[in-house]
Amino acid sequence: MSKVTLQPPRGTRDFFPEELRLRDWIFGHFRAVARQFGFEEIDAPVVEHEELFTRKAGEEIVDQLYHFELHGRRLALRPEITPSVARMVAARRGALKFPLRWFSLPQCWRYERMTRGRKREHYQWNMDIWGEPSVTAEAELIAAIFACFDRMGLAVDATRVRVNSRALLEETLCDSVLRGRPEAFTPLCVVIDKIDKIGADAVKDLLVEPQGAVRLDSAGADFVVDWLSLRDFDDAAKHAPNDSTAAAEVTRLFELLDAYGLSDRVIFDASIVRGLAYYTGIVFEGFDAGRSLRAICGGGRYNRLLETLGGPATPAVGFGFGDVVISELLADQGVLPDCGRELSAVVFPFGEAERAAAVRVARALRARDESVELVLGHPKLKRVLADADKSGARRLYLIGPDELARGEVLVRDLTSGEQTSEPIPD
Amino acid sequence: MSKVTLQPPRGTRDFFPEELRLRDWIFGHFRAVARQFGFEEIDAPVVEHEELFTRKAGEEIVDQLYHFELHGRRLALRPEITPSVARMVAARRGALKFPLRWFSLPQCWRYERMTRGRKREHYQWNMDIWGEPSVTAEAELIAAIFACFDRMGLAVDATRVRVNSRALLEETLCDSVLRGRPEAFTPLCVVIDKIDKIGADAVKDLLVEPQGAVRLDSAGADFVVDWLSLRDFDDAAKHAPNDSTAAAEVTRLFELLDAYGLSDRVIFDASIVRGLAYYTGIVFEGFDAGRSLRAICGGGRYNRLLETLGGPATPAVGFGFGDVVISELLADQGVLPDCGRELSAVVFPFGEAERAAAVRVARALRARDESVELVLGHPKLKRVLADADKSGARRLYLIGPDELARGEVLVRDLTSGEQTSEPIPD
Repeated sequence: MSKVTLQPPRGTRDFFPEELRLRDWIFGHFRAVARQFGFEEIDAPVVEHEELFTRKAGEEIVDQLYHFELHGRRLALRPEITPSVARMVAARRGALKFPLRWFSLPQCWRYERMTRGRKREHYQWNMDIWGEPSVTAEAELIAAIFACFDRMGLAVDATRVRVNSRALLEETLCDSVLRGRPEAFTPLCVVIDKIDKIGADAVKDLLVEPQGAVRLDSAGADFVVDWLSLRDFDDAAKHAPNDSTAAAEVTRLFELLDAYGLSDRVIFDASIVRGLAYYTGIVFEGFDAGRSLRAICGGGRYNRLLETLGGPATPAVGFGFGDVVISELLADQGVLPDCGRELSAVVFPFGEAERAAAVRVARALRARDESVELVLGHPKLKRVLADADKSGARRLYLIGPDELARGEVLVRDLTSGEQTSEPIPD
Repeated sequence: MSKVTLQPPRGTRDFFPEELRLRDWIFGHFRAVARQFGFEEIDAPVVEHEELFTRKAGEEIVDQLYHFELHGRRLALRPEITPSVARMVAARRGALKFPLRWFSLPQCWRYERMTRGRKREHYQWNMDIWGEPSVTAEAELIAAIFACFDRMGLAVDATRVRVNSRALLEETLCDSVLRGRPEAFTPLCVVIDKIDKIGADAVKDLLVEPQGAVRLDSAGADFVVDWLSLRDFDDAAKHAPNDSTAAAEVTRLFELLDAYGLSDRVIFDASIVRGLAYYTGIVFEGFDAGRSLRAICGGGRYNRLLETLGGPATPAVGFGFGDVVISELLADQGVLPDCGRELSAVVFPFGEAERAAAVRVARALRARDESVELVLGHPKLKRVLADADKSGARRLYLIGPDELARGEVLVRDLTSGEQTSEPIPD
């Protein structure tokens, strides 16, 4: 074992105490917001049957699976939790009270090419509403995202949520560009989602590819790419049919966001499509206002996912919000918290003769739910004082032979330096 | 995807809200105890390089690895977190302040034959102390285990911790039974740990096997198996050398446990050896008093683990405490908590005209950190009342056309049935 590397596998993280405290701070905000919005926490296995995640839509997420065979079964580490949640909903559908408001904090894995700020695992706060067809659900979810930004200490103008509607694009393309080939729409979304990475020309090439799943003509591909550049909802609505339900939904969503006090913080952006095949309606992503970072979070409506698992049609909408990009943004904005260690007291017996008394002091403090470090060996007092100071302890309890003889423990307030005595508990 | 199974992979668990609340309750106790004892939380990757876990000691844990190759690398899901923690200690050894008191709540995987109460994943509370050679560390850890039992509501006589010392056995066997072959001791421990599963005769066969790593003579094997049946420390100490440091350690440990008020709850038991190769000194396991269940938790001293990773010799001791067996014991003892949902309020707009006002009511409540479910569709009032009651909500806020006209929301206390009115916030 002498060659064992001391680093975690590439793209994964160790969490030393200071890093774990930051993770805990982030998770605490995720959980607090979910609680305020009346969501219940759930979880699913890290390892699932591979088939749960493999769709035939050419999605990046499928190519990046951590998958393997073990004792004759094809398994995979979850790249996202939504398919597992859908599986759980389908498994107990009859016993569940809809609409469900479920959240989770899964760790997810994707074998990605490593670039700065990209890892192969991250934690992803998921909030999902199952069983509600109207955009009142989207509005709650977007409000929850901003509630999280706000309580993390980000300025009101530091972030934006960008909203689009796949249904609006689908209605717009259906009769003209897609010419009665509705099955081409999902692969079209998967292709156009790559535009930021591969550019407009490469996207057009994929859209017209004769062997591809989309197979638009050249004018159709031009129309789609032009549509993606729209940033004004009225312009986008103009291309949709007159009775467009998708357009009415977007309009209603913005009305609702106004009641949440969020209409200035949400932008229509036709380029937001999301890379996953299963979205069907409104889609949205959260970004830093300057767009110097990747998306902080993203989600949308996925009304047909349960059917693909063999369940009944069930409306659903949700988002995922990772722990990595938000950490970068908090750092960039100078609002990363100083997560210090919390320790009430250090108890120090001078020698083994005083240890039993020190144990009794520690027990009494712990029974009062204080956080107590009992010094285990026999370092010098100077070292104990320095360590106690560094660890942020508030009080030091000392027992030497004189204290023990008097049945007392010396209590030193590490902030004020004041010293008092207390009886050693029985 | 129509054949996707709705069940999680065999041996793994979905956590629906009620199960997640129980998990949270258990984790809450683990964390609270760790905090009281001054431990800091850490975490390490779920997926590690396989070599971190593969030892050549014939341990069960190695045969049960979830391991796989991905892009040319041999990886494995962690079966335990201790090797990862050792890796982390080695990686930052110069910057860390010893002794370290670290805890974690990792999920771990072992591909085991499925029997009742055994799963292929579990969560395992780990508490480890690095850098302290004396049994003051063992005493703190055993005290933490009982602090957890006590705060979970288990009766004082419902559990016992059984203690042994590998060092005591090693000293006892060294000059006689092992006849100057100290390298045979670790594989001997791995073999004798199987005695409960395979029986004394099969253990003896393995101990004398001419091609095995242990290769005792028949009298030696008999001696070892007889030694395992000892339950009185004085009997075991009699076989050890006169100046046995291991015997002195056990004696000191029981003295310390007396100061913790635990000497009645800890038993010497020579059959406790632990299956992992890396233990070197005191070992211990926690059991229900009636021993109707497997070990609840277990641990010990592993002073040489860091060396096997290429680091300097560093004393260390720790335990793992799973979430599965303790859940069974809590259920058996009738002290499983009733983890109900916590919800402050349900806000119900009668129609879409009242929705913006309802959103403002929900926002105001959430700003006061209340947990609020905003009704998203338009169910009948009767259904809303029934659901609110079932969800444990304390208050229902109703806004119909009349209330909206008056700028008021009707507040119904769901316990008392009392109704009042409040102004709708701006």
